[in-house]
Amino acid sequence: MNKSNLKVTAILITIFTITSLQLAIAQKTIYRDAGSFYLYGKAFQTSTVYHRVDTGKYNDLPAAVKRLLTHSAGLAIAFKTNSKSISAKWCVTTSKALNNLTPIAQKGLDLYIKKDGKWQFAGVGRPNDVCSEYNLVKNMDGTEKECMLFLPLYDELKSLEIGTDEGSTINSLDNPFRHKIAIYGSSIVHGASAGRPGMAYPAILSRKTGLYFVNLGISGNAKMEKSAAKMVSDIQADAFILDCVPNPSPEQIKERAESFVKTVREKHPKAPIILMQSIIREQGNFDLVVKERVRKQNEEITAAFNRLRNAGMKDIFLITAEKLLGNDHDATTDGVHPNDLGFYRMAEQLAPQITKILTTYRIK
Amino acid sequence: MNKSNLKVTAILITIFTITSLQLAIAQKTIYRDAGSFYLYGKAFQTSTVYHRVDTGKYNDLPAAVKRLLTHSAGLAIAFKTNSKSISAKWCVTTSKALNNLTPIAQKGLDLYIKKDGKWQFAGVGRPNDVCSEYNLVKNMDGTEKECMLFLPLYDELKSLEIGTDEGSTINSLDNPFRHKIAIYGSSIVHGASAGRPGMAYPAILSRKTGLYFVNLGISGNAKMEKSAAKMVSDIQADAFILDCVPNPSPEQIKERAESFVKTVREKHPKAPIILMQSIIREQGNFDLVVKERVRKQNEEITAAFNRLRNAGMKDIFLITAEKLLGNDHDATTDGVHPNDLGFYRMAEQLAPQITKILTTYRIK
Repeated sequence: MNKSNLKVTAILITIFTITSLQLAIAQKTIYRDAGSFYLYGKAFQTSTVYHRVDTGKYNDLPAAVKRLLTHSAGLAIAFKTNSKSISAKWCVTTSKALNNLTPIAQKGLDLYIKKDGKWQFAGVGRPNDVCSEYNLVKNMDGTEKECMLFLPLYDELKSLEIGTDEGSTINSLDNPFRHKIAIYGSSIVHGASAGRPGMAYPAILSRKTGLYFVNLGISGNAKMEKSAAKMVSDIQADAFILDCVPNPSPEQIKERAESFVKTVREKHPKAPIILMQSIIREQGNFDLVVKERVRKQNEEITAAFNRLRNAGMKDIFLITAEKLLGNDHDATTDGVHPNDLGFYRMAEQLAPQITKILTTYRIK
Repeated sequence: MNKSNLKVTAILITIFTITSLQLAIAQKTIYRDAGSFYLYGKAFQTSTVYHRVDTGKYNDLPAAVKRLLTHSAGLAIAFKTNSKSISAKWCVTTSKALNNLTPIAQKGLDLYIKKDGKWQFAGVGRPNDVCSEYNLVKNMDGTEKECMLFLPLYDELKSLEIGTDEGSTINSLDNPFRHKIAIYGSSIVHGASAGRPGMAYPAILSRKTGLYFVNLGISGNAKMEKSAAKMVSDIQADAFILDCVPNPSPEQIKERAESFVKTVREKHPKAPIILMQSIIREQGNFDLVVKERVRKQNEEITAAFNRLRNAGMKDIFLITAEKLLGNDHDATTDGVHPNDLGFYRMAEQLAPQITKILTTYRIK
């Protein structure tokens, strides 16, 4: 190699080093508290940001319901950024892993980015401890993107920071959805057994319809108590969906359903109220007792619906269950809770029915 | 109450007590080692019953491959019983929970029962420790049923006992599937991220087609080494599917794919060999590097397929990937591994293509 070649090489090495250094600097991640961005999915303002309800205000709620309402199910952070990489640091609790959920669904994060006008899956945050740090997506083009980060379904989110490349922009996004529809319900509303937070059916419905759904799933405990009816009726929603039938006994449905609906109706004289039958329990394919229980639950909610209508209540609807999970019996994780195939099928069935009902009320 | 009424009451109480006692006795669970029943899904006879391959015979396999072949992915116990209740006791290892799988899929059990000629989901075994005991289904009618119990996807099964009601019958079931098709592949074949063991796509394919599939998924490690080719070629299968493209680098595919196929062909001059492109990585929706890597992997497997065909090899086929996961980008748990929606879609796409190919060879 001659002198001039050596000089060129030295220059090239210098340029390469500087460029690499700049890249390394550009890739430094700056974390910001997620509290500064829009939080989608809330029923109320709360003193603890990622709780769904300020349960201190509803002292009569059963203890289990209060605990479950601290879970961040259905909530999502909305922001826009031109960062090529998006990371997160977050802390949850020491609660035990559930055997019918992935840790990603229970304690992890799920990022969607808008592309060609549609929300599209972009990456997950895998939890690896009580506090985790994870890169959700990298190597993106540097155009500004609208992002929604769905929060853990089955745990209390203690803190969350969003990380973007140093030098990139990140700003809050305005609420990307219209109106407000509250869904009070069981573990199925809560999101068991979605594979990741964005696959709970209320979240799929939001992306499918553009409507704002509030997830009030309270695993196993949506038993239509008076205290729960009071809390639900306090939500300033345009419509209400009750998908709670899997939790109360047939007798409890008989005793409580009408009263629950009337409590909501009293505060919301014109809001459509949609009752849903329980999805088929695939456990009942062979277990005759389970099969009979679900049959009775659906019989009781249908009877309560008919009594309300016959008594003159307007603007109430009943969605029946027969098609919600398809007919191959493969759409649950454990015979009770839909897997992602089940949630996909539920959303496919529910979106047109809900949209049709709401359109009559100019909720569209 | 008069004397005769008292007597009647006493008699009724006695009858009731005896009946209850008989019921309690009838419901006592008797456990039998599952080793006495037919084990579906095996490539070879092995010295350790729930290992897929006797890796002692294949010392050249990479250590990770050997370890992964101890997992019971794709195996199922086949039996028939008239018990009203089916339980299981089983032990796995202390391996850590994976964050993209449910514990039911990783370490649990999944029961199917034949109904009206079709295999139908009946219940799961939820793991709660290294050793677990769980009732999979109860309250069934007492007719004799054909059962398949799918074993943990991502752990080594150390022992398994099946429990039925005392006084009921339980017997081994003959192999319920036809022929033998070996699928060598990645974590996706292995079953990540099915919600339960019976939802890995080779298991869905078996139920859909009636064909016997051998699951040789070796998570992240299906890199087409010579030692792996040797092991696969030793299987007495009627056809071979290679769904391993997600694991090797594009360069490794270029170097190894033809040699792998030729090794299998040498031992099986007439068996159809089906190559599969990698499913789309939804991670690559926004990550341009991931997107490009998958494009190159699929380009290389297609090029290798074309070279083999142009060199005159017969009876080889290529299944392309574009439709395997649908087009809504929601069919994975983590951007890499199909969720149950993804596996359902894969099976829907693959079943007719595979069936069509195999029918030509009278494998139907």
